[in-house]
Amino acid sequence: MKKAKKKTPSRARQPRPLIGTLAIFGVGLIGGSFALALKRAGLVGRVLGVGRSKKNLEVARKRRIIDEIATPAEAAARADVVLLATPLGQMAPLLAAIAPHLGPRTIVTDAGSTKQEIIAAARRYLGAALPRFVPAHPIAGTEKHGAIAAFPDLYQGRKLVVTPLPQTSAAAVRTVSRAWQACGMQVVRMRPAEHDRVFATVSHLPHLLAFAMVDIVATDPEARQLFGFAAGGFRDFTRIAGSTAEMWRDICATNRVAVLAVLEKYEAKVEEMHALLERGDLEGLAAVMDRASRARNRWAASQKR
Amino acid sequence: MKKAKKKTPSRARQPRPLIGTLAIFGVGLIGGSFALALKRAGLVGRVLGVGRSKKNLEVARKRRIIDEIATPAEAAARADVVLLATPLGQMAPLLAAIAPHLGPRTIVTDAGSTKQEIIAAARRYLGAALPRFVPAHPIAGTEKHGAIAAFPDLYQGRKLVVTPLPQTSAAAVRTVSRAWQACGMQVVRMRPAEHDRVFATVSHLPHLLAFAMVDIVATDPEARQLFGFAAGGFRDFTRIAGSTAEMWRDICATNRVAVLAVLEKYEAKVEEMHALLERGDLEGLAAVMDRASRARNRWAASQKR
Repeated sequence: MKKAKKKTPSRARQPRPLIGTLAIFGVGLIGGSFALALKRAGLVGRVLGVGRSKKNLEVARKRRIIDEIATPAEAAARADVVLLATPLGQMAPLLAAIAPHLGPRTIVTDAGSTKQEIIAAARRYLGAALPRFVPAHPIAGTEKHGAIAAFPDLYQGRKLVVTPLPQTSAAAVRTVSRAWQACGMQVVRMRPAEHDRVFATVSHLPHLLAFAMVDIVATDPEARQLFGFAAGGFRDFTRIAGSTAEMWRDICATNRVAVLAVLEKYEAKVEEMHALLERGDLEGLAAVMDRASRARNRWAASQKR
Repeated sequence: MKKAKKKTPSRARQPRPLIGTLAIFGVGLIGGSFALALKRAGLVGRVLGVGRSKKNLEVARKRRIIDEIATPAEAAARADVVLLATPLGQMAPLLAAIAPHLGPRTIVTDAGSTKQEIIAAARRYLGAALPRFVPAHPIAGTEKHGAIAAFPDLYQGRKLVVTPLPQTSAAAVRTVSRAWQACGMQVVRMRPAEHDRVFATVSHLPHLLAFAMVDIVATDPEARQLFGFAAGGFRDFTRIAGSTAEMWRDICATNRVAVLAVLEKYEAKVEEMHALLERGDLEGLAAVMDRASRARNRWAASQKR
């Protein structure tokens, strides 16, 4: 183990990497890609991996995403930075479990898709360590998961949203921001409630709707025939329905109020289009479609720039 | 014009192409790509283009998708095969307009996304030419449109659905099928009502839902911020909302009954998920998501084979 340290090439060039020891809780697509990107940039000394699945952790070690497997308490005690990258449902219990073991300068951050609930848990459990908790959300991902899916370029050109509390240490925010910037991300600040409202609309709702779409096909007596004729439009529309249920259950659960609010808005819009079609108001229907089509194409054009 | 004929290289190799003169009504992505693929295969002698937009027809001529621009009556009189590839709303009036001009052996086919209404229009207007009408639907497309978007490989590996009537000539079905097979398509037969039900579910509904999703974002007071944080999931989910309103208005209008039926089913499913989330039944919500996720991943895996 000590030999492995000496071999780290960044050590020679960078006597003090940004993060001496990094602990990744949940070494999946998100946590694993973060570790790979930081290793490539030479910004991390040693990476500890914590997780429920021994098999996944072994994959992570073989892929050199992590250097060793650790228990939550051990990782909390040794790490300079702890990243929680598990499904959201595990984060609050993990915060409670690691709080007594955290080193005196350890920074804790997370990569969760919702922010208000994890912040509430941090206030509940972290005590004196609360100023060293940096709530964050890297806006990146695919429908793949596990250490096997991790790759160092996942974050290139994407945005990291940080939602610090009034008492969060500026130095802790700086360290976390620098690490994600080194992964290729642009750092943006938002208020936690604002974050949760925005992502309920542009991410959580589409996932829920894609699951619903696939489910009406999958539970149809003619499912086989329907899937047989599904083509490119269906494929793209439902890609996000390939994501894991656990992750999206937790996201909906921890962002319930905002998701319900935008879901109601969506249901009203679909009802409006339903009524237009039912009463044969085709110009009314076309007006909605045309407004959406123009907005979609403007947005797509802006993404290319 | 006569010189252009002599230059067609396929003439030398194939003294009788499958289609001597082809008339494309609506030289967009669908009609234009059909012409390009047939030209490349050397299966068409001369292509006439008919359309509302002079500018688009000029693009088509410059890209050698069509050899000349024609009026509907002229095209109907001269063509061996007429392909209607306009938005659906124009097809019935076009059938009425060309019926008196059709040559005695001219085959008429269409590329419409719904089949029962165009068949009703054919019965109404085509008279003695009805057995030479081959209702068809190539399952291919992108959200792009116009002659500028046409490319000969659009149909490679995709399915063509033909929905012949009892009185449709077998020879006409054969000719149309061969042409689309030469574009790379697999030909499948369905009953018109079955076709319309299947595509209401796997194509028309997702389009309507994607328009609704973009519209709630576009009409939000914070639209700018929402679009600013929309990422890959939103992009794929809403890709089909970039399609033209005219096309999808017509599809919904001509497949109203089937679209309304599946829309009701979808609304019930969303309501079910809404209720599960509202009353905090997270395992119930996860069960729907998990069933959908597994079905989506099975389908995606089957598509790769």
